[in-house]
Amino acid sequence: MSAKVYLVGGGPGAVDLLTVRAVRLLAEAEIVFHDALVPQAILALAPRAEKVAVGKRSGRHSTAQHFINKRLADAAQQHRIVVRLKGGDPLLFGRAQEEIDYLRAHGIAVEVVPGVTAAFAASADLGVSLTQRGLARSVAFVTPRVGAGEADSTWVQTVLAADTAAIYMGAGEALAISQALIKGGKPAATPVAVIENASLGAAVARGTLAELPQLAAQLSGGPVLILLGEVLRNAVSAAQRAKARRRLAR
Amino acid sequence: MSAKVYLVGGGPGAVDLLTVRAVRLLAEAEIVFHDALVPQAILALAPRAEKVAVGKRSGRHSTAQHFINKRLADAAQQHRIVVRLKGGDPLLFGRAQEEIDYLRAHGIAVEVVPGVTAAFAASADLGVSLTQRGLARSVAFVTPRVGAGEADSTWVQTVLAADTAAIYMGAGEALAISQALIKGGKPAATPVAVIENASLGAAVARGTLAELPQLAAQLSGGPVLILLGEVLRNAVSAAQRAKARRRLAR
Repeated sequence: MSAKVYLVGGGPGAVDLLTVRAVRLLAEAEIVFHDALVPQAILALAPRAEKVAVGKRSGRHSTAQHFINKRLADAAQQHRIVVRLKGGDPLLFGRAQEEIDYLRAHGIAVEVVPGVTAAFAASADLGVSLTQRGLARSVAFVTPRVGAGEADSTWVQTVLAADTAAIYMGAGEALAISQALIKGGKPAATPVAVIENASLGAAVARGTLAELPQLAAQLSGGPVLILLGEVLRNAVSAAQRAKARRRLAR
Repeated sequence: MSAKVYLVGGGPGAVDLLTVRAVRLLAEAEIVFHDALVPQAILALAPRAEKVAVGKRSGRHSTAQHFINKRLADAAQQHRIVVRLKGGDPLLFGRAQEEIDYLRAHGIAVEVVPGVTAAFAASADLGVSLTQRGLARSVAFVTPRVGAGEADSTWVQTVLAADTAAIYMGAGEALAISQALIKGGKPAATPVAVIENASLGAAVARGTLAELPQLAAQLSGGPVLILLGEVLRNAVSAAQRAKARRRLAR
Protein backbone atom coordinates (compact mmCIF):
# COMPACT_ATOMS: atom_id res chain seq x y z
CA MET A 1 0.00 0.00 0.00
CA SER A 2 1.54 3.32 -1.06
CA ALA A 3 -0.31 5.59 1.35
CA LYS A 4 0.99 9.03 2.02
CA VAL A 5 0.11 11.70 4.53
CA TYR A 6 0.33 15.23 3.16
CA LEU A 7 0.75 18.07 5.64
CA VAL A 8 -0.80 20.85 3.62
CA GLY A 9 -0.65 24.60 4.20
CA GLY A 10 -4.17 26.01 4.07
CA GLY A 11 -2.94 29.57 3.72
CA PRO A 12 -4.23 32.69 5.49
CA GLY A 13 -7.95 32.17 4.81
CA ALA A 14 -8.89 33.23 1.27
CA VAL A 15 -9.61 30.18 -0.87
CA ASP A 16 -7.58 31.43 -3.83
CA LEU A 17 -4.50 31.90 -1.66
CA LEU A 18 -4.09 28.16 -1.44
CA THR A 19 -1.38 26.80 -3.68
CA VAL A 20 -2.27 24.91 -6.83
CA ARG A 21 -0.72 21.79 -5.26
CA ALA A 22 -2.86 22.13 -2.14
CA VAL A 23 -6.02 22.43 -4.23
CA ARG A 24 -5.10 19.34 -6.24
CA LEU A 25 -4.40 17.27 -3.12
CA LEU A 26 -7.66 18.35 -1.48
CA ALA A 27 -9.54 17.31 -4.61
CA GLU A 28 -7.88 13.88 -4.54
CA ALA A 29 -7.93 13.33 -0.78
CA GLU A 30 -9.93 10.48 0.68
CA ILE A 31 -9.81 11.94 4.18
CA VAL A 32 -8.92 15.41 5.45
CA PHE A 33 -7.96 16.18 9.05
CA HIS A 34 -8.25 19.90 9.66
CA ASP A 35 -7.89 22.48 12.41
CA ALA A 36 -11.02 24.09 13.76
CA LEU A 37 -10.26 27.47 12.14
CA VAL A 38 -10.08 26.30 8.50
CA PRO A 39 -12.86 28.08 6.54
CA GLN A 40 -15.72 26.00 5.09
CA ALA A 41 -14.96 27.32 1.59
CA ILE A 42 -11.56 25.61 1.76
CA LEU A 43 -12.99 22.31 3.02
CA ALA A 44 -15.42 22.45 0.08
CA LEU A 45 -12.37 21.89 -2.17
CA ALA A 46 -12.35 18.30 -0.91
CA PRO A 47 -15.80 17.05 -1.95
CA ARG A 48 -14.82 13.36 -2.00
CA ALA A 49 -13.11 13.37 1.37
CA GLU A 50 -14.31 12.51 4.81
CA LYS A 51 -13.60 15.61 6.94
CA VAL A 52 -12.37 15.26 10.48
CA ALA A 53 -12.00 18.32 12.71
CA VAL A 54 -9.08 17.90 15.09
CA GLY A 55 -9.00 21.34 16.67
CA LYS A 56 -6.97 21.57 19.81
CA ARG A 57 -7.82 23.63 22.85
CA SER A 58 -5.05 25.03 24.96
CA GLY A 59 -4.33 23.21 28.18
CA ARG A 60 -5.25 19.83 26.72
CA HIS A 61 -2.50 19.79 24.14
CA SER A 62 -0.49 16.61 24.67
CA THR A 63 -3.38 14.15 24.90
CA ALA A 64 -5.00 15.69 21.85
CA GLN A 65 -1.72 15.65 19.87
CA HIS A 66 -1.11 11.99 20.58
CA PHE A 67 -4.68 11.24 19.54
CA ILE A 68 -4.22 13.16 16.25
CA ASN A 69 -0.94 11.33 15.53
CA LYS A 70 -2.65 8.00 16.04
CA ARG A 71 -5.64 8.89 13.86
CA LEU A 72 -3.34 10.03 11.03
CA ALA A 73 -1.42 6.75 11.19
CA ASP A 74 -4.64 4.73 11.25
CA ALA A 75 -6.00 6.66 8.26
CA ALA A 76 -2.83 5.86 6.31
CA GLN A 77 -3.67 2.17 6.72
CA GLN A 78 -7.05 2.65 5.06
CA HIS A 79 -6.58 5.46 2.54
CA ARG A 80 -4.14 6.26 -0.23
CA ILE A 81 -4.17 10.06 0.12
CA VAL A 82 -4.51 11.49 3.61
CA VAL A 83 -4.43 15.28 3.96
CA ARG A 84 -3.61 17.00 7.23
CA LEU A 85 -4.66 20.59 6.58
CA LYS A 86 -3.17 23.36 8.72
CA GLY A 87 -3.69 27.11 8.64
CA GLY A 88 -0.96 29.22 7.00
CA ASP A 89 2.25 27.24 6.48
CA PRO A 90 2.41 23.83 8.20
CA LEU A 91 5.95 24.34 9.51
CA LEU A 92 5.46 27.74 11.17
CA PHE A 93 3.51 27.51 14.45
CA GLY A 94 1.74 24.43 13.12
CA ARG A 95 3.02 21.83 15.63
CA ALA A 96 3.85 19.66 12.67
CA GLN A 97 7.04 18.03 13.92
CA GLU A 98 5.25 15.72 16.31
CA GLU A 99 3.03 14.44 13.50
CA ILE A 100 5.95 14.07 11.06
CA ASP A 101 8.10 12.20 13.59
CA TYR A 102 5.28 9.90 14.68
CA LEU A 103 4.30 8.99 11.12
CA ARG A 104 7.89 8.36 10.04
CA ALA A 105 8.54 6.27 13.12
CA HIS A 106 5.62 4.13 11.98
CA GLY A 107 6.99 3.78 8.45
CA ILE A 108 4.43 6.09 6.87
CA ALA A 109 5.50 8.45 4.08
CA VAL A 110 4.97 12.14 4.79
CA GLU A 111 5.17 15.10 2.46
CA VAL A 112 4.83 18.77 3.39
CA VAL A 113 3.15 21.27 1.08
CA PRO A 114 4.15 24.81 2.10
CA GLY A 115 1.62 27.61 2.29
CA VAL A 116 1.19 31.36 2.58
CA THR A 117 1.50 32.48 6.19
CA ALA A 118 -0.77 35.05 7.85
CA ALA A 119 1.99 37.68 8.14
CA PHE A 120 2.36 37.84 4.36
CA ALA A 121 -1.40 38.15 3.86
CA ALA A 122 -1.56 40.85 6.55
CA SER A 123 1.25 42.89 5.03
CA ALA A 124 -0.37 42.48 1.59
CA ASP A 125 -3.64 43.81 3.02
CA LEU A 126 -1.72 46.81 4.36
CA GLY A 127 0.42 47.27 1.24
CA VAL A 128 3.48 47.47 3.48
CA SER A 129 6.67 45.53 2.82
CA LEU A 130 8.08 43.74 5.88
CA THR A 131 11.59 44.54 4.67
CA GLN A 132 12.56 47.90 3.24
CA ARG A 133 15.83 49.22 1.90
CA GLY A 134 17.74 51.21 4.51
CA LEU A 135 15.07 50.50 7.15
CA ALA A 136 14.50 46.77 7.73
CA ARG A 137 16.60 43.76 6.80
CA SER A 138 15.30 41.32 9.40
CA VAL A 139 11.86 40.03 10.30
CA ALA A 140 10.97 38.03 13.40
CA PHE A 141 8.04 35.62 13.56
CA VAL A 142 7.15 34.84 17.16
CA THR A 143 4.43 33.57 19.47
CA PRO A 144 4.46 35.34 22.81
CA ARG A 145 4.68 33.48 26.08
CA VAL A 146 3.67 36.05 28.59
CA GLY A 147 4.37 35.78 32.28
CA ALA A 148 6.55 32.73 31.69
CA GLY A 149 9.65 34.21 33.33
CA GLU A 150 13.14 34.93 32.06
CA ALA A 151 13.77 31.47 30.68
CA ASP A 152 10.96 31.83 28.17
CA SER A 153 11.50 35.43 27.11
CA THR A 154 13.37 34.64 23.88
CA TRP A 155 10.35 35.92 21.95
CA VAL A 156 10.92 39.35 23.57
CA GLN A 157 14.63 39.32 22.75
CA THR A 158 13.91 38.30 19.16
CA VAL A 159 11.36 41.07 18.64
CA LEU A 160 13.77 43.61 20.21
CA ALA A 161 16.60 42.57 17.89
CA ALA A 162 14.60 42.40 14.65
CA ASP A 163 13.71 45.41 12.52
CA THR A 164 10.18 44.12 11.91
CA ALA A 165 8.14 41.63 13.93
CA ALA A 166 5.08 39.52 13.27
CA ILE A 167 3.43 38.28 16.46
CA TYR A 168 1.12 35.29 16.05
CA MET A 169 -1.55 34.19 18.49
CA GLY A 170 -1.19 37.31 20.64
CA ALA A 171 -4.75 38.59 20.52
CA GLY A 172 -5.67 37.81 24.09
CA GLU A 173 -2.37 39.06 25.48
CA ALA A 174 -2.08 42.53 23.99
CA LEU A 175 -1.48 44.30 27.29
CA ALA A 176 1.17 41.85 28.47
CA ILE A 177 2.90 41.94 25.06
CA SER A 178 2.98 45.71 25.01
CA GLN A 179 4.34 45.88 28.56
CA ALA A 180 6.97 43.18 28.03
CA LEU A 181 8.33 44.80 24.87
CA ILE A 182 8.38 48.35 26.28
CA LYS A 183 10.04 47.09 29.47
CA GLY A 184 12.60 45.32 27.27
CA GLY A 185 13.49 48.62 25.60
CA LYS A 186 11.30 48.77 22.49
CA PRO A 187 10.17 52.42 22.09
CA ALA A 188 6.55 52.94 23.15
CA ALA A 189 6.04 54.91 19.92
CA THR A 190 6.96 51.96 17.66
CA PRO A 191 4.31 51.79 14.91
CA VAL A 192 1.94 48.83 15.25
CA ALA A 193 -0.83 47.36 13.12
CA VAL A 194 -3.26 44.70 14.33
CA ILE A 195 -4.85 42.80 11.47
CA GLU A 196 -7.92 40.63 11.97
CA ASN A 197 -9.02 38.11 9.32
CA ALA A 198 -6.10 38.81 6.99
CA SER A 199 -6.98 38.08 3.33
CA LEU A 200 -10.71 37.86 4.18
CA GLY A 201 -11.69 41.53 4.10
CA ALA A 202 -9.33 42.30 6.95
CA ALA A 203 -10.11 44.76 9.73
CA VAL A 204 -7.06 46.80 10.70
CA ALA A 205 -6.28 48.87 13.79
CA ARG A 206 -3.17 51.07 13.63
CA GLY A 207 -1.27 52.96 16.30
CA THR A 208 1.75 52.61 18.57
CA LEU A 209 3.12 49.83 20.75
CA ALA A 210 1.84 51.69 23.83
CA GLU A 211 -1.65 51.70 22.32
CA LEU A 212 -1.62 47.98 21.44
CA PRO A 213 -4.21 46.94 24.09
CA GLN A 214 -6.72 49.55 22.84
CA LEU A 215 -6.03 48.58 19.20
CA ALA A 216 -6.69 44.90 19.89
CA ALA A 217 -9.88 45.82 21.75
CA GLN A 218 -11.21 47.64 18.66
CA LEU A 219 -11.42 44.34 16.76
CA SER A 220 -14.09 41.72 17.06
CA GLY A 221 -12.34 38.59 18.27
CA GLY A 222 -11.36 36.88 14.98
CA PRO A 223 -7.85 35.52 14.32
CA VAL A 224 -5.39 38.38 14.75
CA LEU A 225 -1.85 39.13 13.65
CA ILE A 226 0.23 41.91 15.19
CA LEU A 227 2.86 43.60 13.04
CA LEU A 228 5.31 46.11 14.45
CA GLY A 229 8.28 48.10 13.30
CA GLU A 230 9.38 51.27 11.53
CA VAL A 231 8.25 49.86 8.16
CA LEU A 232 4.69 50.63 9.31
CA ARG A 233 5.32 54.31 10.12
CA ASN A 234 3.82 55.75 6.92
CA ALA A 235 0.80 53.44 7.02
CA VAL A 236 0.13 54.38 10.66
CA SER A 237 0.64 58.13 10.11
CA ALA A 238 -1.62 58.15 7.07
CA ALA A 239 -4.37 56.40 9.06
CA GLN A 240 -3.97 58.89 11.91
CA ARG A 241 -4.11 61.87 9.52
CA ALA A 242 -7.28 60.50 7.92
CA LYS A 243 -8.84 60.05 11.38
CA ALA A 244 -7.94 63.64 12.32
CA ARG A 245 -9.48 64.90 9.08
CA ARG A 246 -12.69 63.00 9.78
CA ARG A 247 -12.82 64.54 13.27
CA LEU A 248 -12.34 68.05 11.83
CA ALA A 249 -15.01 67.49 9.20
CA ARG A 250 -17.67 66.67 11.80
CA MET B 1 -9.23 53.48 -17.20
CA SER B 2 -9.27 50.99 -14.31
CA ALA B 3 -5.71 49.74 -14.61
CA LYS B 4 -4.16 47.92 -11.72
CA VAL B 5 -0.66 46.75 -10.96
CA TYR B 6 -0.51 43.43 -9.13
CA LEU B 7 2.64 42.63 -7.16
CA VAL B 8 2.46 38.86 -7.29
CA GLY B 9 4.41 36.33 -5.26
CA GLY B 10 5.94 33.77 -7.61
CA GLY B 11 6.68 31.31 -4.81
CA PRO B 12 9.84 29.27 -4.24
CA GLY B 13 10.18 27.86 -7.77
CA ALA B 14 7.83 24.93 -8.34
CA VAL B 15 4.97 25.94 -10.63
CA ASP B 16 2.29 24.32 -8.50
CA LEU B 17 3.41 26.24 -5.42
CA LEU B 18 1.99 29.43 -6.89
CA THR B 19 -1.33 30.43 -5.39
CA VAL B 20 -4.52 29.98 -7.35
CA ARG B 21 -4.88 33.77 -7.44
CA ALA B 22 -1.39 34.23 -8.88
CA VAL B 23 -2.12 31.69 -11.63
CA ARG B 24 -5.37 33.45 -12.53
CA LEU B 25 -3.70 36.87 -12.69
CA LEU B 26 -0.86 35.56 -14.84
CA ALA B 27 -3.42 34.05 -17.24
CA GLU B 28 -5.22 37.41 -17.50
CA ALA B 29 -2.16 39.68 -17.52
CA GLU B 30 -1.41 41.79 -20.56
CA ILE B 31 2.15 42.45 -19.45
CA VAL B 32 4.37 40.75 -16.87
CA PHE B 33 7.49 42.30 -15.37
CA HIS B 34 9.59 39.62 -13.74
CA ASP B 35 12.88 39.14 -11.92
CA ALA B 36 15.64 37.32 -13.72
CA LEU B 37 15.37 34.21 -11.54
CA VAL B 38 11.69 33.37 -12.24
CA PRO B 39 11.55 29.92 -13.93
CA GLN B 40 10.31 29.68 -17.54
CA ALA B 41 7.60 27.24 -16.50
CA ILE B 42 6.02 29.98 -14.39
CA LEU B 43 6.24 32.59 -17.16
CA ALA B 44 4.49 30.08 -19.42
CA LEU B 45 1.38 30.58 -17.25
CA ALA B 46 1.03 34.01 -18.92
CA PRO B 47 0.70 33.08 -22.60
CA ARG B 48 -1.12 36.29 -23.57
CA ALA B 49 1.29 38.64 -21.82
CA GLU B 50 4.31 40.54 -23.02
CA LYS B 51 7.16 39.48 -20.70
CA VAL B 52 9.71 42.00 -19.52
CA ALA B 53 12.74 40.87 -17.51
CA VAL B 54 13.75 43.52 -15.01
CA GLY B 55 16.49 41.68 -13.16
CA LYS B 56 18.66 43.86 -11.00
CA ARG B 57 22.34 43.45 -10.52
CA SER B 58 23.92 44.45 -7.24
CA GLY B 59 25.75 47.76 -7.23
CA ARG B 60 23.43 49.29 -9.82
CA HIS B 61 20.34 49.16 -7.67
CA SER B 62 18.92 52.67 -7.47
CA THR B 63 19.04 53.52 -11.18
CA ALA B 64 17.50 50.19 -12.04
CA GLN B 65 14.76 50.55 -9.41
CA HIS B 66 13.72 53.98 -10.64
CA PHE B 67 13.62 52.61 -14.17
CA ILE B 68 11.39 49.71 -13.08
CA ASN B 69 9.03 52.05 -11.20
CA LYS B 70 8.68 54.22 -14.30
CA ARG B 71 8.06 51.26 -16.59
CA LEU B 72 5.35 49.88 -14.29
CA ALA B 73 3.60 53.26 -14.23
CA ASP B 74 3.85 53.57 -18.01
CA ALA B 75 2.44 50.06 -18.45
CA ALA B 76 -0.55 50.97 -16.27
CA GLN B 77 -1.40 53.70 -18.80
CA GLN B 78 -1.61 51.15 -21.60
CA HIS B 79 -2.82 47.94 -20.01
CA ARG B 80 -5.63 46.91 -17.70
CA ILE B 81 -3.83 44.14 -15.83
CA VAL B 82 -0.14 44.62 -15.13
CA VAL B 83 1.65 41.90 -13.16
CA ARG B 84 4.91 42.51 -11.34
CA LEU B 85 6.10 38.99 -10.53
CA LYS B 86 8.59 38.50 -7.69
CA GLY B 87 10.20 35.36 -6.31
CA GLY B 88 8.77 34.03 -3.03
CA ASP B 89 6.55 36.56 -1.27
CA PRO B 90 6.64 40.10 -2.68
CA LEU B 91 6.89 41.78 0.74
CA LEU B 92 9.82 39.77 2.11
CA PHE B 93 13.17 40.79 0.59
CA GLY B 94 11.35 41.83 -2.59
CA ARG B 95 12.10 45.57 -2.56
CA ALA B 96 8.41 46.11 -3.15
CA GLN B 97 7.86 49.26 -1.09
CA GLU B 98 9.57 51.51 -3.61
CA GLU B 99 7.30 50.23 -6.37
CA ILE B 100 4.15 50.47 -4.22
CA ASP B 101 4.95 54.02 -3.10
CA TYR B 102 5.83 55.22 -6.60
CA LEU B 103 2.69 53.77 -8.18
CA ARG B 104 0.39 55.13 -5.46
CA ALA B 105 2.04 58.56 -5.71
CA HIS B 106 1.09 58.48 -9.38
CA GLY B 107 -2.52 57.55 -8.63
CA ILE B 108 -2.18 53.96 -9.82
CA ALA B 109 -4.00 51.18 -7.95
CA VAL B 110 -1.74 48.48 -6.52
CA GLU B 111 -2.64 45.11 -5.05
CA VAL B 112 -0.28 42.61 -3.46
CA VAL B 113 -0.77 38.85 -3.86
CA PRO B 114 1.22 37.04 -1.17
CA GLY B 115 3.28 33.96 -1.95
CA VAL B 116 5.15 31.02 -0.45
CA THR B 117 8.61 32.07 0.67
CA ALA B 118 11.76 29.98 0.12
CA ALA B 119 12.21 29.22 3.82
CA PHE B 120 8.90 27.36 3.93
CA ALA B 121 9.73 25.39 0.80
CA ALA B 122 13.18 24.57 2.18
CA SER B 123 11.82 23.36 5.52
CA ALA B 124 9.18 21.33 3.64
CA ASP B 125 11.95 19.70 1.59
CA LEU B 126 13.72 18.80 4.85
CA GLY B 127 10.53 17.76 6.67
CA VAL B 128 11.61 19.92 9.60
CA SER B 129 9.30 22.37 11.34
CA LEU B 130 10.81 25.82 11.92
CA THR B 131 9.01 26.00 15.26
CA GLN B 132 8.82 23.08 17.66
CA ARG B 133 7.19 22.69 21.03
CA GLY B 134 9.67 23.21 23.87
CA LEU B 135 12.46 24.00 21.41
CA ALA B 136 11.66 26.93 19.11
CA ARG B 137 9.02 29.62 19.38
CA SER B 138 10.70 32.30 17.27
CA VAL B 139 12.01 32.37 13.71
CA ALA B 140 14.15 35.11 12.17
CA PHE B 141 14.24 35.86 8.45
CA VAL B 142 17.33 37.91 7.58
CA THR B 143 19.63 38.95 4.79
CA PRO B 144 23.22 39.24 5.94
CA ARG B 145 25.22 42.39 5.48
CA VAL B 146 28.73 41.23 6.07
CA GLY B 147 31.62 43.56 6.83
CA ALA B 148 29.23 46.48 7.14
CA GLY B 149 30.30 47.41 10.69
CA GLU B 150 28.43 47.59 13.98
CA ALA B 151 25.64 49.83 12.69
CA ASP B 152 24.50 47.17 10.25
CA SER B 153 24.85 44.09 12.39
CA THR B 154 21.18 43.86 13.39
CA TRP B 155 20.93 40.73 11.26
CA VAL B 156 23.52 39.09 13.58
CA GLN B 157 21.67 40.18 16.72
CA THR B 158 18.40 38.93 15.30
CA VAL B 159 19.81 35.50 14.43
CA LEU B 160 21.44 35.27 17.89
CA ALA B 161 18.15 36.06 19.64
CA ALA B 162 15.89 33.79 17.58
CA ASP B 163 15.50 30.06 18.13
CA THR B 164 15.53 29.34 14.39
CA ALA B 165 16.93 31.46 11.55
CA ALA B 166 16.45 31.54 7.79
CA ILE B 167 19.21 33.44 6.01
CA TYR B 168 18.37 34.62 2.50
CA MET B 169 20.86 35.62 -0.16
CA GLY B 170 23.84 34.42 1.85
CA ALA B 171 25.33 31.95 -0.61
CA GLY B 172 28.41 33.95 -1.51
CA GLU B 173 29.09 34.99 2.07
CA ALA B 174 29.09 31.68 3.93
CA LEU B 175 32.49 32.18 5.57
CA ALA B 176 31.72 35.71 6.76
CA ILE B 177 28.27 34.65 8.02
CA SER B 178 29.71 31.72 9.96
CA GLN B 179 32.44 33.90 11.50
CA ALA B 180 30.12 36.77 12.41
CA LEU B 181 27.60 34.49 14.13
CA ILE B 182 30.21 32.47 16.03
CA LYS B 183 31.98 35.68 17.10
CA GLY B 184 28.59 36.98 18.28
CA GLY B 185 28.18 33.95 20.53
CA LYS B 186 26.22 31.41 18.48
CA PRO B 187 27.65 27.96 19.27
CA ALA B 188 29.90 26.63 16.48
CA ALA B 189 28.03 23.31 16.77
CA THR B 190 24.62 24.83 15.94
CA PRO B 191 22.98 22.56 13.34
CA VAL B 192 22.82 24.07 9.84
CA ALA B 193 21.23 23.07 6.55
CA VAL B 194 21.97 24.75 3.24
CA ILE B 195 19.22 24.17 0.69
CA GLU B 196 19.72 24.87 -3.00
CA ASN B 197 16.75 25.09 -5.40
CA ALA B 198 14.14 24.56 -2.72
CA SER B 199 10.96 22.95 -4.13
CA LEU B 200 12.73 22.04 -7.40
CA GLY B 201 14.42 18.80 -6.42
CA ALA B 202 16.47 20.55 -3.77
CA ALA B 203 20.08 19.72 -3.02
CA VAL B 204 20.82 19.83 0.70
CA ALA B 205 24.08 20.05 2.65
CA ARG B 206 23.86 19.50 6.41
CA GLY B 207 26.34 20.12 9.20
CA THR B 208 27.26 22.72 11.82
CA LEU B 209 27.60 26.49 11.79
CA ALA B 210 31.40 26.07 11.84
CA GLU B 211 31.17 23.94 8.70
CA LEU B 212 28.91 26.38 6.83
CA PRO B 213 31.57 27.48 4.28
CA GLN B 214 32.29 23.84 3.28
CA LEU B 215 28.57 23.06 3.14
CA ALA B 216 27.90 25.99 0.80
CA ALA B 217 30.84 24.93 -1.37
CA GLN B 218 29.28 21.47 -1.87
CA LEU B 219 26.40 23.00 -3.82
CA SER B 220 26.44 24.12 -7.41
CA GLY B 221 25.71 27.83 -7.35
CA GLY B 222 21.90 27.92 -7.59
CA PRO B 223 19.71 30.00 -5.27
CA VAL B 224 20.45 28.99 -1.71
CA LEU B 225 18.73 29.29 1.63
CA ILE B 226 20.52 28.74 4.94
CA LEU B 227 18.55 27.40 7.90
CA LEU B 228 20.02 27.14 11.37
CA GLY B 229 18.90 26.20 14.82
CA GLU B 230 18.30 23.32 17.19
CA VAL B 231 15.15 22.29 15.27
CA LEU B 232 17.54 20.84 12.66
CA ARG B 233 19.51 18.65 15.09
CA ASN B 234 17.77 15.37 14.26
CA ALA B 235 17.87 16.00 10.51
CA VAL B 236 21.59 16.80 10.68
CA SER B 237 22.47 13.84 12.93
CA ALA B 238 20.52 11.42 10.74
CA ALA B 239 22.40 12.64 7.66
CA GLN B 240 25.73 12.28 9.46
CA ARG B 241 24.89 8.76 10.62
CA ALA B 242 23.91 7.79 7.07
CA LYS B 243 27.21 9.20 5.77
CA ALA B 244 29.17 7.26 8.40
CA ARG B 245 27.31 4.06 7.46
CA ARG B 246 28.15 4.59 3.78
CA ARG B 247 31.81 5.09 4.71
CA LEU B 248 31.83 1.87 6.76
CA ALA B 249 30.15 -0.06 3.95
CA ARG B 250 32.90 0.76 1.46
